[in-house]
Amino acid sequence: MLTVLFAARDGLWEAYRAPLTRALAEAGIAARVVTETDAPETVDYIVYAPNDRLTDFTPFTRCRAVLSLWAGVERIVTNETLTQPLCRMVDSGLEEGMVEWVTGHVLRHHLGIDRQICARAPSWEQVVPPLARDRTVAVLGLGALGRACAQALAGLRFRVSGWSRTPRAIEGIACDHGADGLRRVLERAEIVVLLLPLTAETESLMDAERLGWLPEGAVLINPGRGALIDDAALIAALDAGRLGHATLDVFRTEPLPADHPFWAHPRVTVTPHIASETRPDSAARVIAENIRRGEAGAPFLFLVDRSRGY
Amino acid sequence: MLTVLFAARDGLWEAYRAPLTRALAEAGIAARVVTETDAPETVDYIVYAPNDRLTDFTPFTRCRAVLSLWAGVERIVTNETLTQPLCRMVDSGLEEGMVEWVTGHVLRHHLGIDRQICARAPSWEQVVPPLARDRTVAVLGLGALGRACAQALAGLRFRVSGWSRTPRAIEGIACDHGADGLRRVLERAEIVVLLLPLTAETESLMDAERLGWLPEGAVLINPGRGALIDDAALIAALDAGRLGHATLDVFRTEPLPADHPFWAHPRVTVTPHIASETRPDSAARVIAENIRRGEAGAPFLFLVDRSRGY
Repeated sequence: MLTVLFAARDGLWEAYRAPLTRALAEAGIAARVVTETDAPETVDYIVYAPNDRLTDFTPFTRCRAVLSLWAGVERIVTNETLTQPLCRMVDSGLEEGMVEWVTGHVLRHHLGIDRQICARAPSWEQVVPPLARDRTVAVLGLGALGRACAQALAGLRFRVSGWSRTPRAIEGIACDHGADGLRRVLERAEIVVLLLPLTAETESLMDAERLGWLPEGAVLINPGRGALIDDAALIAALDAGRLGHATLDVFRTEPLPADHPFWAHPRVTVTPHIASETRPDSAARVIAENIRRGEAGAPFLFLVDRSRGY
Repeated sequence: MLTVLFAARDGLWEAYRAPLTRALAEAGIAARVVTETDAPETVDYIVYAPNDRLTDFTPFTRCRAVLSLWAGVERIVTNETLTQPLCRMVDSGLEEGMVEWVTGHVLRHHLGIDRQICARAPSWEQVVPPLARDRTVAVLGLGALGRACAQALAGLRFRVSGWSRTPRAIEGIACDHGADGLRRVLERAEIVVLLLPLTAETESLMDAERLGWLPEGAVLINPGRGALIDDAALIAALDAGRLGHATLDVFRTEPLPADHPFWAHPRVTVTPHIASETRPDSAARVIAENIRRGEAGAPFLFLVDRSRGY
């Protein structure tokens, strides 16, 4: 009988209790799941989302792996007490939700929907948007989420270019990489979607210089990580009319403080970190599969490379 | 040398002159295109969109076909002077634009984007929408446009049901038909897209009774024809809170009069008949192909069946 510690913010256990119990049973794993423990040395696996109670992993001497409930692990990977294998969450529900949010907001900006939604007075000004085939969308970051979004947008016939740190090849997507590639991709992007991991290299990637590479009127969409953007540089670019709009789901501080200039800016849409969320049903199956692999001595899925940071 | 009369509203010829000249040349057709004529008996083909100057087709004794620039022909098909073969426009550009507009507005309602776009004050209320796989969208009308929209929505994993007058089969779409089928489809539709032709049978199809079949909070999207909806019944259903929202692109009178209650209704979005538009490049190729067919004695593409009305 394994012991699994479910260590996440209050309330999450209620959503996971039934799906995780079911997924473990379906994977043939005999496990007792606890939400706290007086005997950390007895814990075999930790299911984890950043929380205040568990920040020191040192006492978990037998723990075979820490299984993150989140796709982004930048708040965990720097924890020096965490020496066990760390796995990211790659959840089909999270991926589907992200594709829907990104596709919805890309189409919103492509079609100019805001003009009608926010209309205060009758206006029959007929502005027909170009076709998607004549609109270039860039996706920065070609991990599971970026790749899925790029493919969905290409499926709607957008001209999609993708950028990643290292070379990637994805059918239907014009992929580029590295520092030179970033400039080439940004210079022709009418809509940019940020789905990069947050690392020392990507922190403030979208600074004044890179924002300046975008064509006049470009739209920035960030469902990735707040710190990918230099907030002040973004506001300056929007104020100057260089950029058309920014739709932001993630922020350096969350909830976004009520006095942050993003809230009231006419060219900024704030969404409250809802672009996507791990879904208990599918996430529980990923966790059970990784526990099964740990017990069978098989390689873990979605193992984090500490040197890369994701 | 054929004579082709281009008879549409002012301004349209400027957009079509170059594409149509090119498409005719590419199809190997020697033709002179005129925008007016003193000798109607010399005209071989009429390219047509409803306009004030040409309403009597009687003098066009040699005309082999009237080629509509529009997909909807209800304003032409009832013209008793029009005895020549009449072809609808089925244009890949029109279809692509419609797919983008419909997908964009379905995702907008699915994701609840309006909440953030129209936000007046900071709010971090995190409402994560369900996944598309758990959202049922109905497409009424499975002609070229309806079918393309249904398939694009299914590609995004929405649960799509389709309805048409006569039975259809489309992969990935739960198709139903006839009067009984309409009730079954509407009763489970959270979002309904109207892409039916306007005929005596579909006029005011969405009346108080049919709107009443929809589940509480359902959203109606109409890029088809304005008269498919009983306006007063729709407003009553919205006022009663039975329906969640209506996004309307087409109206019984266009431009929609400034005093129409749709403009100011908080649960109605008016878009000014921009869901899609025939695109000169691709439409010109369809016209040239039909002239080529007419000259070769081959059957016309998209020939209207006068008894059905489309």
